[in-house]
Amino acid sequence: MGDNLSRIKDALKDALSRAELVIISGGLGPTEDDITKEAVSEFLGRKLILDKGIFEKIKEKLSRYRVSEEAILRQSLVPSAAKTLLNPVGIAPGIIIEEKEKVIILLPGVPHELKAMLPQLKKYLSYKVKSNLVTKSRILKVWGMGESQVNEKIVSLMSQKNPTVALLAKKGEVHIRITAQFPPEEVDSRIETTEKVIREKLGDYIFGADDDTLEGIVAELLIKKNLTISLAESCSGGLVSHRLTDIPGISVSFLAGVVSYSNEAKSEILKVPAKLIKEKGAVSSEVARRMAQGVRNITGSSISLGITGIAGPGGATPEKPVGLVYIALCTDEGELCNRYFFFGTREMIKWRTSQAALDILRRYLLNKINFKS
Amino acid sequence: MGDNLSRIKDALKDALSRAELVIISGGLGPTEDDITKEAVSEFLGRKLILDKGIFEKIKEKLSRYRVSEEAILRQSLVPSAAKTLLNPVGIAPGIIIEEKEKVIILLPGVPHELKAMLPQLKKYLSYKVKSNLVTKSRILKVWGMGESQVNEKIVSLMSQKNPTVALLAKKGEVHIRITAQFPPEEVDSRIETTEKVIREKLGDYIFGADDDTLEGIVAELLIKKNLTISLAESCSGGLVSHRLTDIPGISVSFLAGVVSYSNEAKSEILKVPAKLIKEKGAVSSEVARRMAQGVRNITGSSISLGITGIAGPGGATPEKPVGLVYIALCTDEGELCNRYFFFGTREMIKWRTSQAALDILRRYLLNKINFKS
Repeated sequence: MGDNLSRIKDALKDALSRAELVIISGGLGPTEDDITKEAVSEFLGRKLILDKGIFEKIKEKLSRYRVSEEAILRQSLVPSAAKTLLNPVGIAPGIIIEEKEKVIILLPGVPHELKAMLPQLKKYLSYKVKSNLVTKSRILKVWGMGESQVNEKIVSLMSQKNPTVALLAKKGEVHIRITAQFPPEEVDSRIETTEKVIREKLGDYIFGADDDTLEGIVAELLIKKNLTISLAESCSGGLVSHRLTDIPGISVSFLAGVVSYSNEAKSEILKVPAKLIKEKGAVSSEVARRMAQGVRNITGSSISLGITGIAGPGGATPEKPVGLVYIALCTDEGELCNRYFFFGTREMIKWRTSQAALDILRRYLLNKINFKS
Repeated sequence: MGDNLSRIKDALKDALSRAELVIISGGLGPTEDDITKEAVSEFLGRKLILDKGIFEKIKEKLSRYRVSEEAILRQSLVPSAAKTLLNPVGIAPGIIIEEKEKVIILLPGVPHELKAMLPQLKKYLSYKVKSNLVTKSRILKVWGMGESQVNEKIVSLMSQKNPTVALLAKKGEVHIRITAQFPPEEVDSRIETTEKVIREKLGDYIFGADDDTLEGIVAELLIKKNLTISLAESCSGGLVSHRLTDIPGISVSFLAGVVSYSNEAKSEILKVPAKLIKEKGAVSSEVARRMAQGVRNITGSSISLGITGIAGPGGATPEKPVGLVYIALCTDEGELCNRYFFFGTREMIKWRTSQAALDILRRYLLNKINFKS
């Protein structure tokens, strides 16, 4: 709505006439155009007052940085009689204002800061809202099947009313959302019943639930099983290493990644014979296997992957189209190499490649891979 | 609003009573709960008819995949007398329905698909809207300065009315948005005047504009200058390699990356002396420099970086806190190593590290680094 005082006030008036809870995000920062707190206070006829606790907290957080006291003061102003929410990953606190029967909540506009406040917000709201029915959702996450295929498998559940079942396509994954509204003592078991039916139909295509990520699942299994890993990536450009190293504690398992983009890097670092690259092409199952073997020889890791393909838009030939990717897995128990045809932009092909790579690791770590077949 | 036919119709009715243009995203997919087209057609009293052109296009796109003809048929249904928008990165087409003086536009819910349709949508809307004033925006992107510091530098512009100037904090960057409303022949020069003032005040802290990314700018400079690069990453875990390899055509410049997470990988692949790691610690300027030298020796690249730090949450000591990062640059012209203290979550520390690394490359490629100082 633009950083305009009277427009913010108008919008707030409009929202309060229709809803009991109004959430406003953004405009809590330290600068001239961050005027949400001013607009809301003016509208409600409240004063902005300095919250000393917040002030000290921000000052401590920023002690290493060159930030003016005035900016910190601005960030520590809070409408009178408001509650605050801690900002665990940033500076501006969230603000809760109770006005008669209504609640106005101010959250930061920076997405990861807002997200980090949601648990506190949830706690506050579940305390405020007293109903004899609760609504809960659970998300089951699928990789390796398209939305249509998932739909076909669970079509009988899609028209069910409570719990409802909905499909969401997310960057190469399909998410199945089960939502139920029941009394508190009943809601979890109702969700579980539907979840069980879905799991029977989709088996290990479901890799996780709710906040699970493929990299999180793989990292957890690696650490739990006390196994080490190394990666040789070409077309995925380091994305698999990046995703695995997002997980805290992975340093006990993740030894090294080599992003062997050029042919020379493949032969010099990973010892893939230059002759093999010339004969079979850098994008081939033979090279993927040798990449995986190469990085495992260097690091001595329990497991390794070799990934090579054509992320596009350039580099394709009639036999080797954009989206062709080979992923080799190398372990003590055996070796395999899968071939994929991914579609989409360069970024999506890299992403899907990383998904496939992590899924191979997940299946191996769950003993779902049979090397003899 | 949930996948509910009558609620979608109610919302559409409400929206059309207030606005001339209504955009609905989501619910265009192939599954049971994708009912946006049905809801809109029913509300307008139109029939859903098969668009044969769309049908053939989708069929061709999916020829390699196991998708039922029925699913393709569903995706090819379009309300009568509607226009369609191509989906360059997915399946479901966008739909434009003109109803008396109003326009209803249906877009896919998958964010990257929706985004890919915006240029077509923009073209359609600028053709429809005939005004003697146009609104245009330009975004200038800053790295290396906080929001408060940027605000202090350009405070005189922040209260200006047309063009307006607004600040947006984005994942370690500050974006300055200039927005102007003027007749078409005037609007660009008005934006340029304000842009010039901002650029004078912020200099090369501004790394780009609009759709520019740090990795895009760096890749473009590398390719243009015919230089090659290799990376040795520890705490950034491959993120810098990943970001650079997102840019099409980078394979002529990007030779290799080594994600040397373990100390053994640092000494075995990059030849950083184990003794040095023991004496100075893996997180030290000496090790960062040797990592950069090591990867450059292997690949023979013109430029290299060595990155080591503590991404947290574990691994910190009193002398070496979470967020301490060293980035070394190694070139023919000389070497340097910068030290940083980043704050935030593990993910944000990795991200800020990658930003700092790319910014060092940008400054070097723009001849802004003086190795003697």
